[in-house]
Parts: sequence; C-alpha cells; structure tokens
Amino acid sequence: MSILHLFDILGTIAFAISGALAAMNKRLDIFGVLILAFVTAVGGGTLRDVMIGYTPVAWMRNFTTVLTVFGAYVVILFAKPYVHHFKKTLFFFDSFGLGAFTVTGIAQGLAFGLHPALCVALGTMTGAFGGVLRDMLINEIPHVFRKEIYATACILGGTLFFLLQYFEVSRHLTEIASAVTVVLVRVISIRYKLYLPMIYEREA
Amino acid sequence: MSILHLFDILGTIAFAISGALAAMNKRLDIFGVLILAFVTAVGGGTLRDVMIGYTPVAWMRNFTTVLTVFGAYVVILFAKPYVHHFKKTLFFFDSFGLGAFTVTGIAQGLAFGLHPALCVALGTMTGAFGGVLRDMLINEIPHVFRKEIYATACILGGTLFFLLQYFEVSRHLTEIASAVTVVLVRVISIRYKLYLPMIYEREA
Amino acid sequence: MSILHLFDILGTIAFAISGALAAMNKRLDIFGVLILAFVTAVGGGTLRDVMIGYTPVAWMRNFTTVLTVFGAYVVILFAKPYVHHFKKTLFFFDSFGLGAFTVTGIAQGLAFGLHPALCVALGTMTGAFGGVLRDMLINEIPHVFRKEIYATACILGGTLFFLLQYFEVSRHLTEIASAVTVVLVRVISIRYKLYLPMIYEREA
Repeated sequence: MSILHLFDILGTIAFAISGALAAMNKRLDIFGVLILAFVTAVGGGTLRDVMIGYTPVAWMRNFTTVLTVFGAYVVILFAKPYVHHFKKTLFFFDSFGLGAFTVTGIAQGLAFGLHPALCVALGTMTGAFGGVLRDMLINEIPHVFRKEIYATACILGGTLFFLLQYFEVSRHLTEIASAVTVVLVRVISIRYKLYLPMIYEREA
Repeated sequence: MSILHLFDILGTIAFAISGALAAMNKRLDIFGVLILAFVTAVGGGTLRDVMIGYTPVAWMRNFTTVLTVFGAYVVILFAKPYVHHFKKTLFFFDSFGLGAFTVTGIAQGLAFGLHPALCVALGTMTGAFGGVLRDMLINEIPHVFRKEIYATACILGGTLFFLLQYFEVSRHLTEIASAVTVVLVRVISIRYKLYLPMIYEREA
Repeated sequence: MSILHLFDILGTIAFAISGALAAMNKRLDIFGVLILAFVTAVGGGTLRDVMIGYTPVAWMRNFTTVLTVFGAYVVILFAKPYVHHFKKTLFFFDSFGLGAFTVTGIAQGLAFGLHPALCVALGTMTGAFGGVLRDMLINEIPHVFRKEIYATACILGGTLFFLLQYFEVSRHLTEIASAVTVVLVRVISIRYKLYLPMIYEREA
C-alpha cells in the first residue's frame, strides 16, 4: 500500500468523524449523523466526479471508502465522550486526508485531459468541499470560507504538483511531494495561527 | 398501471405539495413555491441519476412527473386554505411515494450493476433526499436528519428487497413487498411515535 | 463576436461580482470570496450540464469563463469601496447575462433533443440558479424565490423563443429577440417595482 493510499484512508476516517461530530453538535439523530459522516468524507470527490462526468461516482466504485466511513461512524457513536483526547490525532489525519484528496483530484483531472489550473481546482474541490457540503447541511456558512488556511493548502500543493511535473520529476515523487506540502502548509498555518485576509465590509 | 406506478404518482403529488407548503410558510413568491414543489418531488431521483450517471435525469425523461408536479402546484396555490382537511390523506400519499421511490432507486442501482448496499443507499436517496434539498433551500437543517422514522423505513424496505431476491421471490412480488414494508414502517412509527435516538451533546 | 457572446461575458462579470460582494458582506475570507464569485457565475450552467449529462461541465470546456471570473474577482477585491458608483452598470450587465444565459440553456436543451418546456426550464436554471447556489452557500433563502421578477423574465424570454421558432423565424434572430426580451422584462419590472405575488400564510 502506498503512503498516499494510507493518507487517503486516515483522511476518510477524520473527515467522517468531523461530519459525525458536527451532526451530533446539532443534535441530529443517528441517521443524520451517518449521512453527515458520509457527505463530509465523500462529498468533495462526488462533486468532482459529477462535474467531470466520471460516474458512477467514486464512493460507488470503491467499497473500501464506504466501509471506512461506516466503521468510523460506528466507532464515533460510542467513542464521542472520549473524542477530545484524540483532537490532535484527528487534526493530523484530517491534514493527511487533505493532501491525499488533493492529489487524487488532480490525477482525475489529468486523466480527463484538463488544463492544470482546472486540475488544481478539482484537487481543491476534492479536499475541501466535503466540508462545504457538511456545513450547508447543518445550516452554517462553510467554515473553509471563513477561517484557517485550508483550501489554500490544496492550491499550494496543487501548484507544486505542476511545477514538479514541468521539471519532469517522476509522477510518484510528484504526488508524494504535493500531498506532503498540503499537510505541511496546513500544520504550519495552524501552528502559527495564519489566516487568509478578509475584505472588510464598511457600513454603507 | 401497476400498483407501484400508482404509488409513484400519489407520492409525487404529496412530495410536491410538501415542498409548496414549506415554501409558502417561508413566504416565498409563486416562482419559489413552484421550484420548491419540483425540487421536493424530483430532487431525490435527480441526485441519484446524477451520481450514477443516468442522464438526462429522470424528470427530463418522464413528462408525466413534470405534469403531475405542475398540476399539484396549481391545485395547492388555490387549495392552501383547505389543506388541513387533507393532512391524513397527504401523509398516506407521502408514505406511498416513499415506498415507490425507494424501489425505483433500488431498481436503478441494480440496472447499473451496483452492490446491494449501494442500491439500498440509492433507494433511500431517491425517497428521502428530495426533502433534504427542500429543507436546504428554505434554510433549515433537514427534517429527515432530526425527526421521525423516515429514511429508516427506506433502509428496512430496501434490506427486505435483497432478502426476498436472495430467496428467489419473483421480482414483481419483491418490489411490492418492499414498497409496502416502507409504507408500513412509516405508518407504524408515526402511529406509535417511534424516533431514532440522538447521541446527546454534553456541555464541554 | 456576436452580441450574445458579449452579453454572456458582461453577465459573467456581473454575476461574479454579485457573488463576491455577497461573500464580503458575510465577512468571508478571500478564498470564500473567490468561490462565491465562481459559483454565482458558473453555478447555473453547471447544474444544467450535470443534469443533462454534458460533461466536463461548461466552465471546464471554456477557459474564457474561468479567466473572466478570475479577472472580475481580482478587480472587485480592490474596487469594493467604489462599487456603489457602478450599481446601475452592474444591474444592466446582470440583466444582459440573464438574457444570454437563458438562451444558452435553451440551446443546450435543444441540442439534447429535449421538450421545449424542459428547454425553458434549463434556460431559467442557467440564468437564475447561480444566484440560488450563492444564497445557499451564504446561508440565506434564495433571493430569486422571494423578490423581484428574475426567473420570470427567463420564462417569458424562453417562451418567446419557441413562439418565434414555431413561426420559423431564423435561429439567430430568435436568440437575440429572446435574450433582449429577458433583459427588457427585467429592466421594466425593476423600473415599475413589479413583484410576483405570494400566497400568504395565515396563522394556524
């Protein structure tokens, strides 16, 4: 199993748990928690596949994902009271997932012969838009549009991908470096509390 | 016309009316009411078709659906003041629709050669996610994630579908039994006020 | 360049700016502003293409759109304090876009051999649903369901399209007349403060 595959699974777990916790905080029932876990974990890839026309979408082609999300869901149903002990672990899993998902999205775009800029957009969508759908379902303005460096990490990692490809670095190494960059940007930005700026609204 | 086809039409009517009423309660204009009626009636099937790649999506292939929704819309525009007299009827129509839609979704999944678990997911999506989209459009947390046995009925009916197929019951009988199970689970759960549990959020 | 092509570009600019301004008003960061600009400009066409199965969706096939949105985004980041001077210009651009997008949606439906009523629905979707997605993302009930003649303009322009085609008016003239009708209906309705009626909710 390649390192990216491992990142992908750890990320799926972290994304599913993030969706499940958000659902619990909104006092959804256990079906709502299940759906939120799924949507957060597979939503980004689903949006990507639907827009490029690669159907049935990813989670229908890959039963490992479905089982991973379901496993994470069952665990979190019982482990919720202890989840604060694992906050740091989950943050790292989430970052690994962000890296792996970004690279998957880019690879999919390349397989469809799309322009590098569109591939980076697809990578960012794969990494960050599961969380966007999660927040839409629980009736909140998406977190990724407001706080923290998140999508920016995908964009930077994605840009590095095409830089390395331009310099003819091997595809395998490119993918690893790109995913690791996403992880590093994310971790560093949290460590040093880096944010994207806002354009403030003045009173009219 | 098979019984399932009848269920499908009654359900389309009930779903459209549920969307239209939700829109009126939020004081949308008559275009908003029309869109909410449509989205609630065809949203689940549209999501399903988009994800498996069966396009143009169902409501574009089946003009009966479009006319049924539009008819229900026109009627409810004028009949709104009397709708409380038909609450029980609408509840039964809605349940019939839930059963028929679930079976349609499962059949679609089978036609695309998907795993039984994915077929049940598609059936549940077809039955329950029109309401999810309705609630997202009127800026509410989806009702189906919070209250009542609704999606659970789809899941139980869908599971029975594959049990019966496993025991080589005829496809026609399987579909009827599966849809009727959805209806019964829904009706019984409302009658006896059965709910799915929540995992309560404790104060941090 | 045909007049419709010009309308399309001006509309893309106006839609992108409308999304960006909505994002700024909700105090999103600059990534959120970018995404809202994109979603508002390309969301309607994306929904249309996904539902009819014309993938990769429009903005992935047409780099001009991507560059136009990005350009509008960069400009508005800096020009926000002066945007109130251009309110009227933006309103006209928005109306031109509504007309052009409607005609594009209808043309796409025709190319897929769909019924005229479905083509008008696709035209309306292309014109009006970018704004619906924008409002969903910033957690508001879609504006187009509540205020002003907007989608109605698309429906009227779209109906004229098929009337003219029925009388064998040339395709080119039909498209221009249809788009201009959308623009006129929109402008006149704003000028004379015309609204769609609501069906009032009485207290139960």
